[in-house]
Amino acid sequence: MDAKRIAAEKATAYIDHEMVVGLGTGSTAYWAIQKIGENVKRGLRIQAVATSIQSENLAKALGIPMLSMSMVDSIDLTIDGADEVDEAWNLIKGGGGALLREKIVASTSKNLFIVVDERKLVKKLGAFPLPVEIVTFAHEITQNKLRALGCIPVLRMKEQHPYLTDNGNYIVDCDFGSIDHPEELHQIINMIPGVVDNGLFIKMAAKVIVGYQDGTVIEM
Amino acid sequence: MDAKRIAAEKATAYIDHEMVVGLGTGSTAYWAIQKIGENVKRGLRIQAVATSIQSENLAKALGIPMLSMSMVDSIDLTIDGADEVDEAWNLIKGGGGALLREKIVASTSKNLFIVVDERKLVKKLGAFPLPVEIVTFAHEITQNKLRALGCIPVLRMKEQHPYLTDNGNYIVDCDFGSIDHPEELHQIINMIPGVVDNGLFIKMAAKVIVGYQDGTVIEM
Repeated sequence: MDAKRIAAEKATAYIDHEMVVGLGTGSTAYWAIQKIGENVKRGLRIQAVATSIQSENLAKALGIPMLSMSMVDSIDLTIDGADEVDEAWNLIKGGGGALLREKIVASTSKNLFIVVDERKLVKKLGAFPLPVEIVTFAHEITQNKLRALGCIPVLRMKEQHPYLTDNGNYIVDCDFGSIDHPEELHQIINMIPGVVDNGLFIKMAAKVIVGYQDGTVIEM
Repeated sequence: MDAKRIAAEKATAYIDHEMVVGLGTGSTAYWAIQKIGENVKRGLRIQAVATSIQSENLAKALGIPMLSMSMVDSIDLTIDGADEVDEAWNLIKGGGGALLREKIVASTSKNLFIVVDERKLVKKLGAFPLPVEIVTFAHEITQNKLRALGCIPVLRMKEQHPYLTDNGNYIVDCDFGSIDHPEELHQIINMIPGVVDNGLFIKMAAKVIVGYQDGTVIEM
Protein backbone atom coordinates (compact mmCIF):
# COMPACT_ATOMS: atom_id res chain seq x y z
CA MET A 1 0.00 0.00 0.00
CA ASP A 2 1.03 3.59 -0.70
CA ALA A 3 3.07 5.14 2.15
CA LYS A 4 0.93 8.25 2.12
CA ARG A 5 -2.21 6.14 2.40
CA ILE A 6 -0.96 4.20 5.42
CA ALA A 7 0.02 7.43 7.13
CA ALA A 8 -3.31 9.09 6.33
CA GLU A 9 -5.22 6.13 7.74
CA LYS A 10 -3.11 6.27 10.90
CA ALA A 11 -4.09 9.92 11.39
CA THR A 12 -7.77 9.02 11.27
CA ALA A 13 -7.28 6.81 14.35
CA TYR A 14 -7.25 10.02 16.41
CA ILE A 15 -10.84 10.80 15.50
CA ASP A 16 -13.36 10.14 18.28
CA HIS A 17 -17.15 10.17 18.48
CA GLU A 18 -18.77 13.65 18.49
CA MET A 19 -15.73 15.38 17.05
CA VAL A 20 -15.94 18.12 14.43
CA VAL A 21 -13.30 17.12 11.90
CA GLY A 22 -11.62 19.31 9.27
CA LEU A 23 -11.01 17.59 5.93
CA GLY A 24 -8.01 18.73 3.93
CA THR A 25 -7.56 18.78 0.17
CA GLY A 26 -5.26 16.78 -2.08
CA SER A 27 -4.00 13.23 -2.51
CA THR A 28 -3.25 12.62 1.20
CA ALA A 29 -6.53 14.07 2.34
CA TYR A 30 -8.22 11.83 -0.19
CA TRP A 31 -7.04 8.72 1.67
CA ALA A 32 -7.97 10.19 5.03
CA ILE A 33 -11.47 11.02 3.81
CA GLN A 34 -11.89 7.51 2.36
CA LYS A 35 -10.95 5.97 5.72
CA ILE A 36 -13.21 8.34 7.65
CA GLY A 37 -16.04 7.37 5.32
CA GLU A 38 -15.45 3.68 6.13
CA ASN A 39 -15.41 4.41 9.86
CA VAL A 40 -18.62 6.43 9.61
CA LYS A 41 -20.26 3.46 7.90
CA ARG A 42 -19.08 1.32 10.85
CA GLY A 43 -20.76 3.68 13.33
CA LEU A 44 -18.34 6.55 13.98
CA ARG A 45 -20.46 9.59 14.89
CA ILE A 46 -18.71 12.77 13.72
CA GLN A 47 -19.43 15.87 11.70
CA ALA A 48 -16.97 17.35 9.25
CA VAL A 49 -16.13 20.55 7.37
CA ALA A 50 -14.20 20.60 4.12
CA THR A 51 -11.43 22.86 2.80
CA SER A 52 -12.55 22.60 -0.81
CA ILE A 53 -15.58 21.86 -2.92
CA GLN A 54 -13.72 18.78 -4.14
CA SER A 55 -13.26 17.33 -0.63
CA GLU A 56 -16.80 18.31 0.30
CA ASN A 57 -18.21 16.33 -2.63
CA LEU A 58 -16.04 13.31 -1.87
CA ALA A 59 -17.05 13.31 1.79
CA LYS A 60 -20.74 13.66 0.97
CA ALA A 61 -20.54 10.77 -1.50
CA LEU A 62 -19.07 8.62 1.29
CA GLY A 63 -21.89 9.53 3.68
CA ILE A 64 -19.85 11.70 6.07
CA PRO A 65 -22.21 14.22 7.78
CA MET A 66 -21.04 17.64 6.65
CA LEU A 67 -21.35 21.05 8.28
CA SER A 68 -20.94 24.39 6.59
CA MET A 69 -18.18 26.55 8.09
CA SER A 70 -20.93 29.05 9.02
CA MET A 71 -22.20 26.56 11.59
CA VAL A 72 -18.88 25.91 13.26
CA ASP A 73 -17.17 27.77 16.10
CA SER A 74 -14.30 25.40 16.53
CA ILE A 75 -12.91 22.28 14.89
CA ASP A 76 -11.48 19.48 17.03
CA LEU A 77 -9.05 17.95 14.56
CA THR A 78 -8.07 18.73 10.99
CA ILE A 79 -6.15 16.23 8.88
CA ASP A 80 -4.39 17.64 5.84
CA GLY A 81 -1.34 17.18 3.66
CA ALA A 82 1.49 19.57 2.87
CA ASP A 83 3.90 20.25 0.02
CA GLU A 84 6.88 20.76 2.33
CA VAL A 85 7.50 20.35 6.06
CA ASP A 86 10.63 21.78 7.69
CA GLU A 87 12.32 20.75 10.93
CA ALA A 88 10.30 23.28 12.94
CA TRP A 89 7.09 21.88 11.38
CA ASN A 90 6.51 25.02 9.35
CA LEU A 91 4.74 24.12 6.12
CA ILE A 92 4.30 25.11 2.52
CA LYS A 93 0.80 24.28 1.34
CA GLY A 94 -1.34 25.28 -1.58
CA GLY A 95 0.00 23.17 -4.42
CA GLY A 96 -3.60 22.09 -4.86
CA GLY A 97 -4.84 25.68 -4.83
CA ALA A 98 -6.90 25.53 -1.61
CA LEU A 99 -4.42 27.29 0.68
CA LEU A 100 -6.74 29.99 1.98
CA ARG A 101 -9.61 27.71 2.96
CA GLU A 102 -7.09 25.25 4.38
CA LYS A 103 -5.57 28.03 6.47
CA ILE A 104 -8.95 29.31 7.70
CA VAL A 105 -9.91 25.77 8.72
CA ALA A 106 -6.51 25.11 10.30
CA SER A 107 -6.63 28.37 12.26
CA THR A 108 -10.02 27.34 13.66
CA SER A 109 -8.80 23.86 14.66
CA LYS A 110 -7.66 22.82 18.11
CA ASN A 111 -5.31 20.38 16.40
CA LEU A 112 -3.85 20.26 12.90
CA PHE A 113 -2.32 16.90 11.96
CA ILE A 114 -0.19 16.96 8.83
CA VAL A 115 0.29 13.77 6.83
CA VAL A 116 3.09 13.53 4.26
CA ASP A 117 5.37 11.03 2.63
CA GLU A 118 9.07 11.25 3.41
CA ARG A 119 9.87 13.22 0.25
CA LYS A 120 8.07 16.25 1.66
CA LEU A 121 10.45 16.58 4.62
CA VAL A 122 13.00 19.34 4.05
CA LYS A 123 15.68 21.07 6.02
CA LYS A 124 14.63 24.45 4.66
CA LEU A 125 11.40 25.40 2.92
CA GLY A 126 11.40 26.91 -0.55
CA ALA A 127 12.42 24.29 -3.11
CA PHE A 128 8.67 23.94 -3.65
CA PRO A 129 7.43 27.24 -5.10
CA LEU A 130 5.37 29.12 -2.54
CA PRO A 131 1.75 29.59 -3.66
CA VAL A 132 0.43 33.10 -3.01
CA GLU A 133 -3.26 33.92 -3.49
CA ILE A 134 -3.75 37.41 -4.93
CA VAL A 135 -6.74 39.44 -6.11
CA THR A 136 -7.12 39.69 -9.87
CA PHE A 137 -7.18 43.52 -9.90
CA ALA A 138 -3.72 44.89 -10.75
CA HIS A 139 -2.22 41.43 -10.38
CA GLU A 140 0.82 42.42 -12.46
CA ILE A 141 1.68 45.06 -9.85
CA THR A 142 1.25 42.59 -7.02
CA GLN A 143 3.49 40.15 -8.88
CA ASN A 144 6.14 42.87 -9.23
CA LYS A 145 6.06 43.40 -5.47
CA LEU A 146 6.51 39.66 -4.92
CA ARG A 147 9.40 39.62 -7.42
CA ALA A 148 11.05 42.42 -5.44
CA LEU A 149 11.23 40.02 -2.46
CA GLY A 150 13.66 37.85 -4.42
CA CYS A 151 11.50 35.17 -6.01
CA ILE A 152 10.45 34.23 -9.51
CA PRO A 153 6.64 34.56 -9.54
CA VAL A 154 4.66 32.51 -12.05
CA LEU A 155 0.93 33.04 -12.53
CA ARG A 156 -0.69 29.61 -12.26
CA MET A 157 -2.57 28.66 -15.43
CA LYS A 158 -5.27 26.14 -16.24
CA GLU A 159 -6.17 25.39 -19.85
CA GLN A 160 -4.58 28.63 -21.12
CA HIS A 161 -6.40 30.82 -18.60
CA PRO A 162 -5.25 31.97 -15.16
CA TYR A 163 -6.30 29.42 -12.53
CA LEU A 164 -9.07 30.76 -10.28
CA THR A 165 -9.34 29.71 -6.63
CA ASP A 166 -12.65 28.82 -4.98
CA ASN A 167 -12.57 32.47 -3.78
CA GLY A 168 -12.24 33.91 -7.29
CA ASN A 169 -8.58 34.91 -6.94
CA TYR A 170 -5.35 34.07 -8.79
CA ILE A 171 -2.47 31.94 -7.52
CA VAL A 172 1.13 33.00 -8.12
CA ASP A 173 3.73 30.28 -7.53
CA CYS A 174 6.80 32.02 -6.15
CA ASP A 175 10.10 30.22 -6.49
CA PHE A 176 12.34 31.43 -3.66
CA GLY A 177 14.83 28.57 -3.98
CA SER A 178 15.36 28.56 -0.23
CA ILE A 179 13.48 30.42 2.51
CA ASP A 180 15.71 31.39 5.43
CA HIS A 181 13.12 33.13 7.62
CA PRO A 182 9.67 31.69 6.90
CA GLU A 183 7.86 33.53 9.70
CA GLU A 184 9.19 36.89 8.55
CA LEU A 185 8.50 36.16 4.88
CA HIS A 186 4.96 35.08 5.74
CA GLN A 187 4.28 38.44 7.31
CA ILE A 188 5.98 40.53 4.63
CA ILE A 189 4.03 38.81 1.85
CA ASN A 190 0.68 39.14 3.61
CA MET A 191 1.23 42.88 4.12
CA ILE A 192 1.43 43.48 0.36
CA PRO A 193 -1.86 45.08 -0.76
CA GLY A 194 -3.44 42.67 -3.23
CA VAL A 195 -2.17 39.54 -1.46
CA VAL A 196 -4.99 37.56 0.15
CA ASP A 197 -2.79 34.95 1.82
CA ASN A 198 0.19 32.71 1.17
CA GLY A 199 1.00 29.04 1.56
CA LEU A 200 3.32 29.35 4.55
CA PHE A 201 1.75 27.74 7.61
CA ILE A 202 3.83 28.89 10.57
CA LYS A 203 3.71 26.92 13.84
CA MET A 204 0.25 25.57 13.05
CA ALA A 205 0.91 21.81 12.94
CA ALA A 206 0.36 19.90 16.19
CA LYS A 207 1.58 16.58 14.79
CA VAL A 208 3.34 15.40 11.65
CA ILE A 209 2.77 11.84 10.45
CA VAL A 210 5.26 10.59 7.87
CA GLY A 211 4.82 7.61 5.58
CA TYR A 212 8.03 5.96 4.33
CA GLN A 213 8.41 4.01 1.11
CA ASP A 214 9.14 0.78 3.02
CA GLY A 215 5.67 1.03 4.58
CA THR A 216 6.67 2.30 8.01
CA VAL A 217 4.91 5.31 9.49
CA ILE A 218 6.54 7.64 11.98
CA GLU A 219 4.57 10.08 14.10
CA MET A 220 6.46 13.14 15.18
CA MET B 1 -18.32 76.54 -2.60
CA ASP B 2 -18.00 73.31 -0.62
CA ALA B 3 -14.78 73.19 1.48
CA LYS B 4 -14.00 69.71 0.24
CA ARG B 5 -14.38 70.85 -3.34
CA ILE B 6 -11.99 73.79 -2.94
CA ALA B 7 -9.43 71.52 -1.31
CA ALA B 8 -9.82 68.86 -4.01
CA GLU B 9 -9.30 71.44 -6.74
CA LYS B 10 -6.20 72.71 -4.98
CA ALA B 11 -4.74 69.19 -5.01
CA THR B 12 -5.15 68.98 -8.79
CA ALA B 13 -2.81 71.96 -9.19
CA TYR B 14 0.08 69.53 -8.51
CA ILE B 15 -0.66 67.57 -11.67
CA ASP B 16 1.78 68.21 -14.53
CA HIS B 17 1.92 67.18 -18.15
CA GLU B 18 2.87 63.53 -18.81
CA MET B 19 2.02 62.38 -15.30
CA VAL B 20 0.25 59.12 -14.55
CA VAL B 21 -2.42 60.11 -12.04
CA GLY B 22 -4.31 57.87 -9.60
CA LEU B 23 -7.97 58.76 -9.13
CA GLY B 24 -9.53 58.03 -5.77
CA THR B 25 -13.11 57.12 -4.96
CA GLY B 26 -15.79 59.01 -3.06
CA SER B 27 -17.16 62.54 -2.76
CA THR B 28 -13.77 64.28 -2.54
CA ALA B 29 -12.30 62.32 -5.41
CA TYR B 30 -15.41 63.27 -7.38
CA TRP B 31 -14.46 66.96 -7.25
CA ALA B 32 -10.84 66.22 -8.08
CA ILE B 33 -11.85 64.16 -11.10
CA GLN B 34 -14.21 66.91 -12.29
CA LYS B 35 -11.40 69.46 -12.11
CA ILE B 36 -8.92 67.15 -13.83
CA GLY B 37 -11.50 66.65 -16.58
CA GLU B 38 -11.71 70.44 -17.06
CA ASN B 39 -7.94 70.73 -17.18
CA VAL B 40 -7.66 67.93 -19.72
CA LYS B 41 -10.17 69.75 -21.91
CA ARG B 42 -7.90 72.81 -21.62
CA GLY B 43 -4.91 70.83 -22.85
CA LEU B 44 -3.42 69.02 -19.83
CA ARG B 45 -1.74 65.87 -21.15
CA ILE B 46 -1.97 63.10 -18.54
CA GLN B 47 -3.06 59.51 -18.22
CA ALA B 48 -4.97 58.19 -15.24
CA VAL B 49 -5.87 54.99 -13.41
CA ALA B 50 -8.96 54.62 -11.23
CA THR B 51 -9.54 52.97 -7.86
CA SER B 52 -13.11 51.94 -8.66
CA ILE B 53 -15.38 51.23 -11.56
CA GLN B 54 -17.39 54.28 -10.47
CA SER B 55 -14.41 56.68 -10.75
CA GLU B 56 -13.31 55.01 -13.98
CA ASN B 57 -16.70 55.68 -15.56
CA LEU B 58 -16.77 59.28 -14.36
CA ALA B 59 -13.25 59.95 -15.68
CA LYS B 60 -14.02 58.39 -19.05
CA ALA B 61 -17.19 60.48 -19.37
CA LEU B 62 -15.08 63.60 -18.78
CA GLY B 63 -12.58 62.59 -21.48
CA ILE B 64 -9.63 61.78 -19.20
CA PRO B 65 -7.35 59.26 -20.96
CA MET B 66 -7.47 56.12 -18.82
CA LEU B 67 -4.98 53.31 -18.39
CA SER B 68 -5.67 49.90 -16.96
CA MET B 69 -3.58 49.06 -13.88
CA SER B 70 -2.07 46.23 -15.96
CA MET B 71 -0.29 48.82 -18.09
CA VAL B 72 1.20 50.79 -15.22
CA ASP B 73 4.47 50.29 -13.38
CA SER B 74 4.30 53.37 -11.27
CA ILE B 75 1.87 56.24 -10.59
CA ASP B 76 3.19 59.77 -10.15
CA LEU B 77 0.45 61.22 -7.98
CA THR B 78 -2.75 59.84 -6.49
CA ILE B 79 -5.44 62.15 -5.10
CA ASP B 80 -7.93 60.53 -2.77
CA GLY B 81 -10.10 61.24 0.25
CA ALA B 82 -10.15 59.60 3.68
CA ASP B 83 -12.64 58.90 6.45
CA GLU B 84 -10.22 59.85 9.22
CA VAL B 85 -6.74 61.38 9.35
CA ASP B 86 -4.73 61.35 12.57
CA GLU B 87 -1.86 63.62 13.60
CA ALA B 88 0.74 61.24 12.14
CA TRP B 89 -1.22 61.23 8.85
CA ASN B 90 -2.31 57.64 9.31
CA LEU B 91 -5.68 57.15 7.68
CA ILE B 92 -8.88 55.17 7.86
CA LYS B 93 -10.31 54.65 4.40
CA GLY B 94 -12.91 52.37 2.88
CA GLY B 95 -16.19 53.95 3.89
CA GLY B 96 -16.97 53.85 0.18
CA GLY B 97 -15.96 50.20 -0.07
CA ALA B 98 -12.95 50.60 -2.40
CA LEU B 99 -10.22 50.26 0.23
CA LEU B 100 -8.28 47.46 -1.43
CA ARG B 101 -8.03 49.02 -4.86
CA GLU B 102 -7.28 52.36 -3.23
CA LYS B 103 -4.47 50.76 -1.24
CA ILE B 104 -3.01 48.97 -4.27
CA VAL B 105 -3.02 52.22 -6.22
CA ALA B 106 -1.62 54.20 -3.26
CA SER B 107 1.16 51.66 -2.72
CA THR B 108 2.15 52.03 -6.38
CA SER B 109 2.18 55.84 -6.21
CA LYS B 110 5.23 58.03 -5.72
CA ASN B 111 2.95 60.49 -3.94
CA LEU B 112 -0.41 60.11 -2.23
CA PHE B 113 -2.21 63.40 -1.55
CA ILE B 114 -5.17 63.12 0.80
CA VAL B 115 -7.96 65.68 0.63
CA VAL B 116 -10.44 66.00 3.49
CA ASP B 117 -12.66 68.51 5.21
CA GLU B 118 -11.77 69.52 8.75
CA ARG B 119 -14.25 67.11 10.34
CA LYS B 120 -12.08 64.19 9.24
CA LEU B 121 -9.11 65.31 11.33
CA VAL B 122 -8.85 63.32 14.57
CA LYS B 123 -6.39 62.97 17.41
CA LYS B 124 -6.79 59.19 17.41
CA LEU B 125 -8.28 56.97 14.72
CA GLY B 126 -11.19 54.67 15.47
CA ALA B 127 -14.36 56.71 15.99
CA PHE B 128 -15.06 55.86 12.35
CA PRO B 129 -15.57 52.07 12.15
CA LEU B 130 -12.60 50.44 10.42
CA PRO B 131 -13.63 48.71 7.17
CA VAL B 132 -12.07 45.27 6.75
CA GLU B 133 -12.37 43.37 3.47
CA ILE B 134 -12.80 39.62 4.03
CA VAL B 135 -13.43 36.61 1.81
CA THR B 136 -16.99 35.30 1.87
CA PHE B 137 -15.95 31.73 2.83
CA ALA B 138 -16.33 31.19 6.57
CA HIS B 139 -16.90 34.91 7.09
CA GLU B 140 -18.56 34.28 10.47
CA ILE B 141 -15.30 32.76 11.72
CA THR B 142 -13.27 35.66 10.40
CA GLN B 143 -15.70 38.06 12.09
CA ASN B 144 -15.22 36.18 15.37
CA LYS B 145 -11.47 36.65 15.07
CA LEU B 146 -11.96 40.37 14.50
CA ARG B 147 -14.31 40.57 17.50
CA ALA B 148 -11.61 38.95 19.61
CA LEU B 149 -9.42 42.00 18.89
CA GLY B 150 -11.84 44.16 20.84
CA CYS B 151 -14.15 45.63 18.22
CA ILE B 152 -17.80 45.28 17.28
CA PRO B 153 -17.81 43.93 13.72
CA VAL B 154 -20.83 44.61 11.53
CA LEU B 155 -21.21 42.97 8.13
CA ARG B 156 -21.94 45.76 5.65
CA MET B 157 -25.28 45.27 3.90
CA LYS B 158 -26.81 46.65 0.72
CA GLU B 159 -30.49 46.16 0.03
CA GLN B 160 -30.79 43.28 2.53
CA HIS B 161 -27.80 41.41 1.09
CA PRO B 162 -24.16 41.56 2.14
CA TYR B 163 -22.37 44.31 0.22
CA LEU B 164 -19.89 42.90 -2.30
CA THR B 165 -16.68 44.75 -3.17
CA ASP B 166 -15.39 45.08 -6.74
CA ASN B 167 -13.24 42.05 -5.83
CA GLY B 168 -16.21 39.90 -4.80
CA ASN B 169 -15.51 40.07 -1.05
CA TYR B 170 -17.46 41.25 2.00
CA ILE B 171 -16.78 44.35 4.09
CA VAL B 172 -16.98 44.22 7.88
CA ASP B 173 -17.13 47.61 9.62
CA CYS B 174 -15.25 47.22 12.89
CA ASP B 175 -16.02 49.70 15.63
CA PHE B 176 -12.92 49.93 17.81
CA GLY B 177 -13.96 53.20 19.49
CA SER B 178 -10.35 54.32 19.66
CA ILE B 179 -7.24 52.81 18.07
CA ASP B 180 -4.13 53.30 20.19
CA HIS B 181 -1.60 51.53 17.94
CA PRO B 182 -2.76 51.72 14.32
CA GLU B 183 0.40 50.24 12.80
CA GLU B 184 0.27 47.20 15.07
CA LEU B 185 -3.47 46.73 14.55
CA HIS B 186 -3.02 46.97 10.79
CA GLN B 187 -0.59 44.08 10.86
CA ILE B 188 -2.56 41.91 13.29
CA ILE B 189 -5.74 42.25 11.23
CA ASN B 190 -4.03 41.47 7.94
CA MET B 191 -2.49 38.31 9.40
CA ILE B 192 -5.94 36.82 10.09
CA PRO B 193 -6.63 34.16 7.46
CA GLY B 194 -9.71 35.30 5.55
CA VAL B 195 -8.85 38.99 5.78
CA VAL B 196 -7.90 40.47 2.41
CA ASP B 197 -6.98 43.94 3.68
CA ASN B 198 -8.18 46.64 6.02
CA GLY B 199 -8.80 50.38 5.80
CA LEU B 200 -5.78 51.51 7.83
CA PHE B 201 -3.31 53.36 5.61
CA ILE B 202 -0.11 53.65 7.62
CA LYS B 203 2.48 56.26 6.67
CA MET B 204 1.27 56.37 3.08
CA ALA B 205 0.15 60.00 2.74
CA ALA B 206 2.73 62.46 1.41
CA LYS B 207 0.49 65.50 1.85
CA VAL B 208 -2.82 66.25 3.53
CA ILE B 209 -4.96 69.09 2.16
CA VAL B 210 -7.74 70.25 4.47
CA GLY B 211 -10.77 72.28 3.49
CA TYR B 212 -12.36 74.36 6.27
CA GLN B 213 -15.98 75.42 6.42
CA ASP B 214 -15.04 79.09 6.10
CA GLY B 215 -13.55 78.32 2.70
CA THR B 216 -9.88 78.33 3.66
CA VAL B 217 -7.66 75.46 2.61
CA ILE B 218 -4.58 74.42 4.54
CA GLU B 219 -1.91 72.16 3.08
CA MET B 220 0.00 70.12 5.59
